[in-house]
Amino acid sequence: MTMLPEKLLTGYRTFMAQRYANETMRYRQLAEQGQTPETLVIACCDSRAAPEIIFDTSPGEIFVIRNVANLVPPYEPDGEYHATSAALEFAVQSLKVKNIVVLGHGRCGGIKAALDTESKPLSPGDFIGKWMSLVAPAAEAVAANELMTPFERQTALERISIRYSLRNLRSFPCVDILEKKGRLTLHGAWFDISTGELWVMNPETGDFLRPDPELVDLQPGQ
Amino acid sequence: MTMLPEKLLTGYRTFMAQRYANETMRYRQLAEQGQTPETLVIACCDSRAAPEIIFDTSPGEIFVIRNVANLVPPYEPDGEYHATSAALEFAVQSLKVKNIVVLGHGRCGGIKAALDTESKPLSPGDFIGKWMSLVAPAAEAVAANELMTPFERQTALERISIRYSLRNLRSFPCVDILEKKGRLTLHGAWFDISTGELWVMNPETGDFLRPDPELVDLQPGQ
Amino acid sequence: MTMLPEKLLTGYRTFMAQRYANETMRYRQLAEQGQTPETLVIACCDSRAAPEIIFDTSPGEIFVIRNVANLVPPYEPDGEYHATSAALEFAVQSLKVKNIVVLGHGRCGGIKAALDTESKPLSPGDFIGKWMSLVAPAAEAVAANELMTPFERQTALERISIRYSLRNLRSFPCVDILEKKGRLTLHGAWFDISTGELWVMNPETGDFLRPDPELVDLQPGQ
Amino acid sequence: MTMLPEKLLTGYRTFMAQRYANETMRYRQLAEQGQTPETLVIACCDSRAAPEIIFDTSPGEIFVIRNVANLVPPYEPDGEYHATSAALEFAVQSLKVKNIVVLGHGRCGGIKAALDTESKPLSPGDFIGKWMSLVAPAAEAVAANELMTPFERQTALERISIRYSLRNLRSFPCVDILEKKGRLTLHGAWFDISTGELWVMNPETGDFLRPDPELVDLQPGQ
Repeated sequence: MTMLPEKLLTGYRTFMAQRYANETMRYRQLAEQGQTPETLVIACCDSRAAPEIIFDTSPGEIFVIRNVANLVPPYEPDGEYHATSAALEFAVQSLKVKNIVVLGHGRCGGIKAALDTESKPLSPGDFIGKWMSLVAPAAEAVAANELMTPFERQTALERISIRYSLRNLRSFPCVDILEKKGRLTLHGAWFDISTGELWVMNPETGDFLRPDPELVDLQPGQ
Repeated sequence: MTMLPEKLLTGYRTFMAQRYANETMRYRQLAEQGQTPETLVIACCDSRAAPEIIFDTSPGEIFVIRNVANLVPPYEPDGEYHATSAALEFAVQSLKVKNIVVLGHGRCGGIKAALDTESKPLSPGDFIGKWMSLVAPAAEAVAANELMTPFERQTALERISIRYSLRNLRSFPCVDILEKKGRLTLHGAWFDISTGELWVMNPETGDFLRPDPELVDLQPGQ
Repeated sequence: MTMLPEKLLTGYRTFMAQRYANETMRYRQLAEQGQTPETLVIACCDSRAAPEIIFDTSPGEIFVIRNVANLVPPYEPDGEYHATSAALEFAVQSLKVKNIVVLGHGRCGGIKAALDTESKPLSPGDFIGKWMSLVAPAAEAVAANELMTPFERQTALERISIRYSLRNLRSFPCVDILEKKGRLTLHGAWFDISTGELWVMNPETGDFLRPDPELVDLQPGQ
Repeated sequence: MTMLPEKLLTGYRTFMAQRYANETMRYRQLAEQGQTPETLVIACCDSRAAPEIIFDTSPGEIFVIRNVANLVPPYEPDGEYHATSAALEFAVQSLKVKNIVVLGHGRCGGIKAALDTESKPLSPGDFIGKWMSLVAPAAEAVAANELMTPFERQTALERISIRYSLRNLRSFPCVDILEKKGRLTLHGAWFDISTGELWVMNPETGDFLRPDPELVDLQPGQ
């Protein structure tokens, strides 16, 4: 009897034979002592953009929220269920992370759906439509520019939505206060699936730049 | 100037030099042709339990939702923002995944908080308290059982909450219909951070068992 | 007596000692037999983006128009002086070039001026304002999107104006006819001064992509 | 798929491997800080006479206008599109160049066309005929002198048209004023494609002379 997709079971056996075998002590210590990740990464669910792969992290390094299009809703203490806000609160207040990285990526299906003004809801509940409405004003502004190609519009909205999520992060009092005290730093980054390139946001200008592997400073590009 | 935590930048360079270098064509094809993951994994944000590591997946294989304690809320088409329901809808309706795996793990901070009836809210909004209230009745029942050790109570609630999430998944009409048609399979699994063991849920009994690496059948445990 | 800026005279002596010394026969043949360039490049006057340098061309290879922002005005047979249209006509009708490349570049001062809606004319004649009004509708559309950063807006307009120039090229009957006969090919490219990267336009989608030095095919980026 | 002429792509790769590799920091600084060229060169589109090659310039040194026969039209603030006047205004008023060099050359196709009184227009719009009519009175006078050989007539008109462009430059108020204040210097030069020689115009007599590489003074010739 196989109770998991066979491919996942095979992968799990590789994990045990390699990664876990190599890092047994680290896993045991992490289990005993609990996690103390320094960084929260808010990433997309996309199967091609896992932050643990892109940042080649070890277990215990990054606490990871993944939702469609790596969005952060604005602070709304309304007593509803908020998966992202709850995880954010846990990371900042309980784990006391020092960094938050909003990690977007190219060819994002959620962003594409937000730009497709003629799409029909996937369900009567239209969860995805409602979720992507978090960036609706930006999506409308970008979609209206017919001089840009569809690909250019998509990249533009992907990057705008990262800046938008960073702004919403600051609407949470705990984030705002800790950032002003210098105990929490916010970052934006955008991953290009095709080229593997990571474009990092300049916090002052909002532009996305590629880190230079040689010089460790950042050069603008588009 | 460094705009990302140095550790992540270093990790990214390793990714480019190793993983991306080895899988360039795969990344390019995934970028060109779009993602077609066969499996949705609903996992915890915990820094020690990344599904891509545990299942040793390649890019493009699994679509991943990560929230605190890998919870699925019940179907509530109320027009609010629902990060998890939106991502679920996108995976099932748009990407048409064939499998959904709810992946829990040991020593889960969210589950621990749910069992700690004397804890105070982390914030006036109390996002994490509200979020974990999704398993409140089970948490109360387990917490009341003083014959189990705290560790046993935590493991018990971790597994109950996986079964609870699987039940909520079936409250979504699209999941229910496709599962009944045999086009979608639901799975539960629980990862032991300390031993690296993956315990897989028997769909008939709800028990969690260890797949035997030699025999490929499943042995009950814990 | 020095009748040229000293730096240019020094550079000229280097040209004579090196390039001309190495290519004397080529220069003599080009003088005797006349030029037969296969490609017309329409580039910007910018001191940082000379096409002969970027394409490492030999003498005789490319016929080059340079005006501010590498613009092509629409076909207007009105009897006025048209520097760009005249040079285009000469390249296509008399030299019978096989390719036309519109070469834009990042951080273009002309495009920046077009986006700066509050700038005052440099002169009563306002030649530069009138010239950049060739892309005024696009500039207004892009300038209106305040969600993009100034740098992003500039890159967007730089690329839109390349597509715009290609469209205007096709308004010239001689270009349109020869392209349809397959005897003339139109190309767009954008040079990143900072990184040295050349982004080439996909003629079908209008997107700008980086040519891959290894594979000689083109991968989308940005 | 190749979206640029293969020869240009090959040349671009050489540029990246050699010139850009050697001057990376210069390109980055020029991108960051903007261009500050000291000299505007007005040159011909001819594929054999690129000013960056002839003057062996580095990126950022010269701002370059290229039109057929390196002509400057007279100052005409008539609200029409003027590629050359716009670029001139940008160089003088915005970049505040200190020198303007009108660079002509031998065997110029535009000048040859101006002398060929029996040629038919290349198109109904006759852009090139209209453009070259800027030197029509001189062309007629030279063409009438049957005592000179065709080659002598062509060289004569090439040099006359350089002096003519310098006169038109001075019809622009901004050029005239700055030259009189000593903040802008005008130069003429003529490049012999066959011998590689640069002939520089004596500003007082209008004669074209060869700078002596040894003695750094100028010897009359031709």
